[in-house]
Amino acid sequence: MTHAFKNCSNLLGTGASRGLGLQIVESLVTGGFSPGKIIATARNPDGATELQIVCLSNSNCVRLCCLGVTCQQSIERAASEVEQLVQEEGLNCLINNAGINVVTNLETVTADKMLENVHTNSVAPLMITKAMLPLLKRAAAKGTGKGMGIHRAAVINMTSLLGSIELALNMVTRCLAVDLEADGILCMALHPGWVRIDMGGPEAPLSPEESISCVLSVIGGLTEKDHGSFLHYTGEQLPR
Amino acid sequence: MTHAFKNCSNLLGTGASRGLGLQIVESLVTGGFSPGKIIATARNPDGATELQIVCLSNSNCVRLCCLGVTCQQSIERAASEVEQLVQEEGLNCLINNAGINVVTNLETVTADKMLENVHTNSVAPLMITKAMLPLLKRAAAKGTGKGMGIHRAAVINMTSLLGSIELALNMVTRCLAVDLEADGILCMALHPGWVRIDMGGPEAPLSPEESISCVLSVIGGLTEKDHGSFLHYTGEQLPR
Repeated sequence: MTHAFKNCSNLLGTGASRGLGLQIVESLVTGGFSPGKIIATARNPDGATELQIVCLSNSNCVRLCCLGVTCQQSIERAASEVEQLVQEEGLNCLINNAGINVVTNLETVTADKMLENVHTNSVAPLMITKAMLPLLKRAAAKGTGKGMGIHRAAVINMTSLLGSIELALNMVTRCLAVDLEADGILCMALHPGWVRIDMGGPEAPLSPEESISCVLSVIGGLTEKDHGSFLHYTGEQLPR
Repeated sequence: MTHAFKNCSNLLGTGASRGLGLQIVESLVTGGFSPGKIIATARNPDGATELQIVCLSNSNCVRLCCLGVTCQQSIERAASEVEQLVQEEGLNCLINNAGINVVTNLETVTADKMLENVHTNSVAPLMITKAMLPLLKRAAAKGTGKGMGIHRAAVINMTSLLGSIELALNMVTRCLAVDLEADGILCMALHPGWVRIDMGGPEAPLSPEESISCVLSVIGGLTEKDHGSFLHYTGEQLPR
């Protein structure tokens, strides 16, 4: 599976302190993702002890970076930091994974709860992509080979089928895909399945390892035909 | 067309100061929608001179009510006012029409612009529906006849195909449909077409009259089979 990542020098994953974000980092490290850098972001790096351990044991390739996805200042600060890390190589793969699931219903819903949800799950991925765009363009321009994929640059929006508003992310993905096509930056949405993480609960059928193994396999195999698509962790096309 | 509205006693339309909202009120009045009341809301009633004229010339059936759709206090104040107007009859038809179209692109987009757009177009219809729910339930319970439709109670979310985030409204509509089914309140999303109003511009193929004539015809003919649907102004089903 991991050999598909060999032409991806630099990858950034948000929300890496736990759940699927942490699993992405662990699976990449375990699979021998040695070239280049994995930049793992967390809102509160000091509290992300598991991620800290992974970073310390793989200090040659994993870097921890502070990023609160709903704060524009934090996004811009992270983008500068990432530029220092990736320099002329640029960023080959941005995985917008950070998300929340505000459980609510018609009785308890408030405008603020909905907007918080939309901000974290739909608006933040767009703002982060926008901030990282110069680095993505750099990688896409330098990338060897034709077509699209992580050998050039790709934006992966991790999406959840839980929570209606999160589907707005799929629309954001489609719009981004249109805007980024000219730069050769692949953009798609990926549903990791129902996974036994805090958000998915103990009854979910997939372990984090299983989900992320499939997710990375899908990401590694992305080509221009997947541009703007919404794929299941199995690689299957989902209705948009 | 308008005879289909004969069993709808009380209707509320938001964003009635201009564009399609104003046209809804005018078409209902012209078509002889005499029974019950039309409650036309505007964020700033003092500035809504055209709507004021319609209200004055039809003071027996049209009432102007202040409603800023992104302000929870304003929504609650409007709900009390509407309750005074409709009393035991309740509200048969809520048309969430108020909307904005924040024109933006990847260069100019900000989190605030996107959130403002989402708030007005997707969150506000939900909050307004929630506030009017006791009145909708009252009308659904009193409504003669079986099934669903404006002879009982219906929530119509006017949607635009312009602007990606607005499609979140269709998701809100589907979730609302699930929540309101037990109360017999029909809930659906309706696309008025591309219309020559400020938002649509002068090149749009439809006049406001043409669009709203079709829209009212669709609303008048809604039955339980349309619950949770997303219809074009022609009555055609749109992909969700």
